[in-house]
Amino acid sequence: MIVAYVGTRFAGWQVQPGRETIQGVLERRTSAMLQETVRIAGAGRTDAGVHARGQVASMTIGSRVPVEGLVRGLNALLPEEIRVLRAEEAPPAFHARADARGKEYRYLIARGDVASPFVLPFALPARGRLDVEAMRAAARAFQGRHDFTSFCPAASPIEDKTRTIHLSEIVEDGDLVEYRVRGDGFLHHMVRTMAGTLVLVGRGRLTADSIGGILAERDRRRAGPVAPARGLTLEKVFYHEEAL
Amino acid sequence: MIVAYVGTRFAGWQVQPGRETIQGVLERRTSAMLQETVRIAGAGRTDAGVHARGQVASMTIGSRVPVEGLVRGLNALLPEEIRVLRAEEAPPAFHARADARGKEYRYLIARGDVASPFVLPFALPARGRLDVEAMRAAARAFQGRHDFTSFCPAASPIEDKTRTIHLSEIVEDGDLVEYRVRGDGFLHHMVRTMAGTLVLVGRGRLTADSIGGILAERDRRRAGPVAPARGLTLEKVFYHEEAL
Repeated sequence: MIVAYVGTRFAGWQVQPGRETIQGVLERRTSAMLQETVRIAGAGRTDAGVHARGQVASMTIGSRVPVEGLVRGLNALLPEEIRVLRAEEAPPAFHARADARGKEYRYLIARGDVASPFVLPFALPARGRLDVEAMRAAARAFQGRHDFTSFCPAASPIEDKTRTIHLSEIVEDGDLVEYRVRGDGFLHHMVRTMAGTLVLVGRGRLTADSIGGILAERDRRRAGPVAPARGLTLEKVFYHEEAL
Repeated sequence: MIVAYVGTRFAGWQVQPGRETIQGVLERRTSAMLQETVRIAGAGRTDAGVHARGQVASMTIGSRVPVEGLVRGLNALLPEEIRVLRAEEAPPAFHARADARGKEYRYLIARGDVASPFVLPFALPARGRLDVEAMRAAARAFQGRHDFTSFCPAASPIEDKTRTIHLSEIVEDGDLVEYRVRGDGFLHHMVRTMAGTLVLVGRGRLTADSIGGILAERDRRRAGPVAPARGLTLEKVFYHEEAL
């Protein structure tokens, strides 16, 4: 299933006791609809408040139900903020997370004195001067294969923090500054820390050419802050390396 | 003040006892900030669930406060769904509603099997076939000076239901079908009834050339249903006839 959601009022993707999560709602509604206990795997375990336009979710079900009926039935049961955009049958071994070969995220920044209430739930509002050209240059410096230790929590238990970034660019659209990043994998908080660092570059508090050094030092304290969840959207999940 | 709001969780513009309204919130926050009782007039009394990108609100205040400080202070106090985009000093006699010479509204329709959760709060989702060319022709038929009795509640107490529509057009943008209408005034539910009628045309249940007859009959039962509030946005208020 391709799932889109506005994550504002959810405690992220992953099921948590006593919290409303995307995975939890999806599993509950699907189980209710199919009258069987369904477990759903998501390609990306998005954090609380993060949105998705192209999350991929997989499940194994016993019921025989046409995919169109599944999509229509689920959307009738789900809250409006979560939509199953489409679904298809996959090979029995397919697993949305284990089989993912890459992801694309967008981080949105809304410039201007006052951010529109239509944009605010999906963007970091940034008042004042923002040097977009410097951000553009800094974004490019993330491209390639790097150790991202400086861009994930110091306590991260993951050993290999090397990831390949295939695309890392700034797209300007009027007052909106969009950071697009695509890579073979992302550590926890990685995109938001990259975005937070790019904002520091835009503010003139870091230079565009400092990114290489921050990566090389492998020290979390060298990078910028974790940018707010609301600006982040999981755009797409890739299952073929060639497509990255 | 130019005010933008996402109207989803508000009971419309106008103050109502026991209900959260845009005017009510604005008056409360402004009064609290300025330490005086402030009454605010809005150009358009938008219904529950209707949005605004360019509502105009006027008030007379005793406090001497620079407009930039007013805007910044109010936005800090207001809920995120309501933003004061800018403010300026007006002549003492200015009244946002009484002085308005026209308004522009947008009604958004989202085609496709599944509407994006990012669009759904601002659009009427329309599954299945929609004849946009027929809607375009029907929309054009609203242009000019007409009696809109067929497009407002039969019980409306307003005597003169003649209004001049300067622009009435359909703009297509991928899956989004946008109806834009600008005129010297609008009756209660008028834009939503026009939109509901255009959807019937798109569905093939009315022909594009039936609009003239519906207007001429001055009978509410001849027009389509009132389209849902969520699709409607007050885009702009005009204070000079020449600008319409």
